[in-house]
Amino acid sequence: MKQITFLLIAVATLVGVVAFTAPASRAANEGAPAIFVTKIPSGYRDWKLISVAHEEGNLNSFAAVLGNDVAIKAYREGKLPYPDGTIIAALHYGHVSSEENNKVFGRSQSFVPGAPTNIQFMVKDSKKYSTTGGWGFGHFKDGKPGDEALMNTCFPCHNQGKARDLVFTRYAP
Amino acid sequence: MKQITFLLIAVATLVGVVAFTAPASRAANEGAPAIFVTKIPSGYRDWKLISVAHEEGNLNSFAAVLGNDVAIKAYREGKLPYPDGTIIAALHYGHVSSEENNKVFGRSQSFVPGAPTNIQFMVKDSKKYSTTGGWGFGHFKDGKPGDEALMNTCFPCHNQGKARDLVFTRYAP
Repeated sequence: MKQITFLLIAVATLVGVVAFTAPASRAANEGAPAIFVTKIPSGYRDWKLISVAHEEGNLNSFAAVLGNDVAIKAYREGKLPYPDGTIIAALHYGHVSSEENNKVFGRSQSFVPGAPTNIQFMVKDSKKYSTTGGWGFGHFKDGKPGDEALMNTCFPCHNQGKARDLVFTRYAP
Repeated sequence: MKQITFLLIAVATLVGVVAFTAPASRAANEGAPAIFVTKIPSGYRDWKLISVAHEEGNLNSFAAVLGNDVAIKAYREGKLPYPDGTIIAALHYGHVSSEENNKVFGRSQSFVPGAPTNIQFMVKDSKKYSTTGGWGFGHFKDGKPGDEALMNTCFPCHNQGKARDLVFTRYAP
């Protein structure tokens, strides 16, 4: 019995792996669990600038949005959907008042990045991430990936931006 | 008389050129007029990220601060003063509310770069810019350099940051 159970689990696992890696259509994977980016893409801090961003409220975030070469090329050419291989990185920091800058200006007006809070990634792989619009989402705090509850919020939100292939950030010239 | 006047102007011009290009000490150039960066350094939009910045008030600016390879290396190694060849670029945009992002968030919290306002540069050349702490300052709006009155405000302000070689922006990790 133990052997049969093990075999069933092994087959189920194998089927799962095949379902994720085979060139399946998006429809075929509907209902399949989302998979996320679990490893920080190497070299992202050297990538080129896409834009900057600030969120008020609870987030209180200051962001630099960078892209790998595939991303930058697609952005500059206005190519949609983004091709496989595109990676977009959002480097988030706190949004803090700069006392040293304010002294120079003679008034309180200057904001700079505080401590890093998290880094988020969108990785385009239309097959691997077929259940989430072709995008793999990643969130890393102190180098560790976000938990599943957090990660399951990425796609439903980004899926509101279908007209621009789920990407909110526009290119700053 | 005309010839003598022309000769005097020619000599004065030559002396001026020599004074600017000879390896003169900073003290020797004190009182000499400042010279500015009058040409946009090529390729700056492809440079790596140093940090981001926001100024409230009249400026209402959103900035991405980028550096050429010499600048990035110096920043990452904490090298002061910055070596000759360092170029720092501040790409300024308006700081505007993003209606399309706010719709997704369901509340007004998102700010993005508006139209570009100006690009500013600091170019380190300890000989060429010896009268302004070794830095050449540049300001370009729609590709055109700022007038002399504006440009004369750069050095006195940045000179308040002597402890960090006149550079205000810190590196965002």
